[in-house]
Amino acid sequence: MAKEKKQPRPKAETPKGFRDYFGAEVTHRAEMLRTIASVYHRYGFDALESSAVETVEALGKFLPDVDRPNEGVFAWQEAEEGDKKGDWLALRYDMTAPLARVYAQHRNDLPTPYRRYTMGPVWRNEKPGPGRFRQFYQCDADTVGTASMAADAEICAMLADTLEAVGIARGDYLIRVNNRKVLNGVLESMGLSDEHQRAAVLRTIDKFDKVGEAGVRELLGKGRLDDSGAYIDGVGLSALQSDPVVAFLTSKGFDNGFTLANLRRAVGGSEIGAAGVDELDQISTLLAAQGYGPDRIVIDPSVVRGLGYYTGPVFEAELTFEILDEKGRKRQFGSVAGGGRYDDLVKRFTGQEVPATGISIGVDRLLAALHAKGRMSTVEHGPVVVTVMDRDRMADYQAMVAELRNAGIRAEVYLGNPKNFGNQLKYADRRNSPVAVIAGGDEFDAGKVQIKDLILGAKIAENATLEEWKDRPSQYEVQRSELVEKVRAILDGQDG
Amino acid sequence: MAKEKKQPRPKAETPKGFRDYFGAEVTHRAEMLRTIASVYHRYGFDALESSAVETVEALGKFLPDVDRPNEGVFAWQEAEEGDKKGDWLALRYDMTAPLARVYAQHRNDLPTPYRRYTMGPVWRNEKPGPGRFRQFYQCDADTVGTASMAADAEICAMLADTLEAVGIARGDYLIRVNNRKVLNGVLESMGLSDEHQRAAVLRTIDKFDKVGEAGVRELLGKGRLDDSGAYIDGVGLSALQSDPVVAFLTSKGFDNGFTLANLRRAVGGSEIGAAGVDELDQISTLLAAQGYGPDRIVIDPSVVRGLGYYTGPVFEAELTFEILDEKGRKRQFGSVAGGGRYDDLVKRFTGQEVPATGISIGVDRLLAALHAKGRMSTVEHGPVVVTVMDRDRMADYQAMVAELRNAGIRAEVYLGNPKNFGNQLKYADRRNSPVAVIAGGDEFDAGKVQIKDLILGAKIAENATLEEWKDRPSQYEVQRSELVEKVRAILDGQDG
Repeated sequence: MAKEKKQPRPKAETPKGFRDYFGAEVTHRAEMLRTIASVYHRYGFDALESSAVETVEALGKFLPDVDRPNEGVFAWQEAEEGDKKGDWLALRYDMTAPLARVYAQHRNDLPTPYRRYTMGPVWRNEKPGPGRFRQFYQCDADTVGTASMAADAEICAMLADTLEAVGIARGDYLIRVNNRKVLNGVLESMGLSDEHQRAAVLRTIDKFDKVGEAGVRELLGKGRLDDSGAYIDGVGLSALQSDPVVAFLTSKGFDNGFTLANLRRAVGGSEIGAAGVDELDQISTLLAAQGYGPDRIVIDPSVVRGLGYYTGPVFEAELTFEILDEKGRKRQFGSVAGGGRYDDLVKRFTGQEVPATGISIGVDRLLAALHAKGRMSTVEHGPVVVTVMDRDRMADYQAMVAELRNAGIRAEVYLGNPKNFGNQLKYADRRNSPVAVIAGGDEFDAGKVQIKDLILGAKIAENATLEEWKDRPSQYEVQRSELVEKVRAILDGQDG
Repeated sequence: MAKEKKQPRPKAETPKGFRDYFGAEVTHRAEMLRTIASVYHRYGFDALESSAVETVEALGKFLPDVDRPNEGVFAWQEAEEGDKKGDWLALRYDMTAPLARVYAQHRNDLPTPYRRYTMGPVWRNEKPGPGRFRQFYQCDADTVGTASMAADAEICAMLADTLEAVGIARGDYLIRVNNRKVLNGVLESMGLSDEHQRAAVLRTIDKFDKVGEAGVRELLGKGRLDDSGAYIDGVGLSALQSDPVVAFLTSKGFDNGFTLANLRRAVGGSEIGAAGVDELDQISTLLAAQGYGPDRIVIDPSVVRGLGYYTGPVFEAELTFEILDEKGRKRQFGSVAGGGRYDDLVKRFTGQEVPATGISIGVDRLLAALHAKGRMSTVEHGPVVVTVMDRDRMADYQAMVAELRNAGIRAEVYLGNPKNFGNQLKYADRRNSPVAVIAGGDEFDAGKVQIKDLILGAKIAENATLEEWKDRPSQYEVQRSELVEKVRAILDGQDG
């Protein structure tokens, strides 16, 4: 703790866009991360924890979706040493850029292929908004050093297993797989070689989720009147030219076989397009061999998120159940994880191309989904509270609590000012305690102790005096020697 | 991943003083943190995860042991907004300064007293050295809002339970307790009111561990010739004046009762000194009532670390067994945790005094201790590796690995280039795999599969060709349908 100075008092506030997490928020996330890690581990992935701080140089100075250097990260310059200027350092903004640095740095000591998982906070220097924080958790798994589609299929299978392990039932999620090469093939078969026009088509494809087939046709053609009334200029393609793009986006068929056949038509004679379809075919076959059918993982060319960023297969996990949004409207929960293949990961550092593929789970969104489905209780029982009727007997109360703890029961002595007994009950209430233990002079003389079931008696207790409270049927007088046994019986009853 | 730019290649290096953690380094720490959290939780402490970033203002601009503002932290200034200057933000350097901010910010929503634990990295902008990193883990528990010595006693008992829970045997550790007020009483009874002289005495006391009783006497008096030959000026006290300080430092007696009697003599008529001895007496009594004797927690006035920083009781946990240092010399392992009472925690923010006490465990040191004692294996078995003899049968290999994983066995398919089978064996070796599964055309035709016990066969396998290797007795041919059963039998045998 810092010493006091004669200065105006500092504000007790997190910096803007940051927050603290309390109690069950912390432990539920820790449990989820543990569960995810156990699945990743079972798949042969090894843990990695890279430093939270990287050189700006190693991070690459910009976020995946931000093209301006030095934007989007928290960065600072180290102090000079002699006449050597200090390095610029920054907090990591994702787990992929550090993986590239780690792999390039340690590649001679790491197995190839290298399967690694990592979990922890990342930081974004962005304008915070409601529910949008500048520090949040990511939980990634990547396989570095293999071009085999078996790595991509494995990532998808692992993602399905992970979602089920954390409590998303089969049928409540769908992992959709697309491929950037197929899209490139479509663009090639359209004869679109102009870089600007290709970028415009890519941007349009990104809007497919929002505007649908007709909207995409308009945007590829002459343009479209926005919902806001603004006119959005089109790419200027003819209807015929637009056909392959629309065919690509809408090629999802009755099963993976139909979808793949549709895609083969959509890419026409393009070599890269055919390679992309072959990759999807391999993934589909490998997954089928492991028993992952299209009810869990499906080829779906309408997945467009990340198509601009990745170089091959792209994955997205969506939760398909409906929840009520903050305005009480039903909507699909949506995406909780995404990833894909990015084959020039390490090249920045070493000049060598190193193929890699991976997935990132949005842990906080997944937690929110489980809460929304009622699959994770937001209420956590507090400890058993041993109240203090006689402050001179603190050693006796401590002995009680030690017995309870030694029996594995979460318990504590009330450590505030014991004068006002009502405050002790309020404290137990605020702690959501399941049981209170009460002993004063009479009880000690008789070798007894009072045990109060607070779950049963919670509402009554809140505004009652001690005397009323002691007469409730949810309170028991037992022998001091039976303390642990009786408390455990009440706790077991509450759980049941 | 960042896009490539035409720039010189970035260096693939962590910033100076930072490092990465791999595999078992990560999972062992995670296990230890989980164990510690479960003890803290049993004691009624609630989890807290505060943001890693704080305003420099809230942190107090300086480290506990560094008196210069803006030193020791990684800090940066936010961008301006309009004509409002950006806030200075910084990474937390410990868990106590953020706790003060959190408690001041949320005090109306938190129970009083508030017991909280927290674990995570902290960052120090200091010159790195061998084994000294600028990012490391802390694992803290504090009780805020009570002046009761029961809180301090509880922290000590919890620390003892925690050390035993993570694998430090009773007898291999000792928690030593001292009290700043006793020292203040000693200084008062000496009539030392000059601030500079008191500070000089405090600095001298800090050297007791190193120079012993005779050294302290010299330093309190005329001065002392250093080991390096330099002469250190003394405080200038007479031998008589020095007596109470030496009496304080050497007052540890046969048991806590003797020690407390010695301390009462050392503080003379000082009121604050007597209050300090009373506090130690209470802690001793409360701990005895819970069954924590001086074999685990002992009053020891020779504990001087932190005496300048804390305001009341001070705790230190030491591991008492000997290890060999890097030069092969025997030495005591030493301190793994420390803490104490600091009663002006929240005052900087609110003006109100809020008593608090707590402990911080050096997780990385504790891990090192367990490794040194051989109580934590540094070697972790890798996954079962399903090798690839025929790349066209990848779907079959994936089916095998899926069966193993579904049975809860850690397993993976070799995803590198399968052409050179020797590379696959080298890979399995590097992964420290317990078992390899091998199946080529012959095996598939016969409905069989080869299973190789790699722990048994590791050394032989390393330089042998496939043909030699297949003939070893540690390799079995089994029915394809018996794959899971047989692999499990080998793994169980390896564990036993």
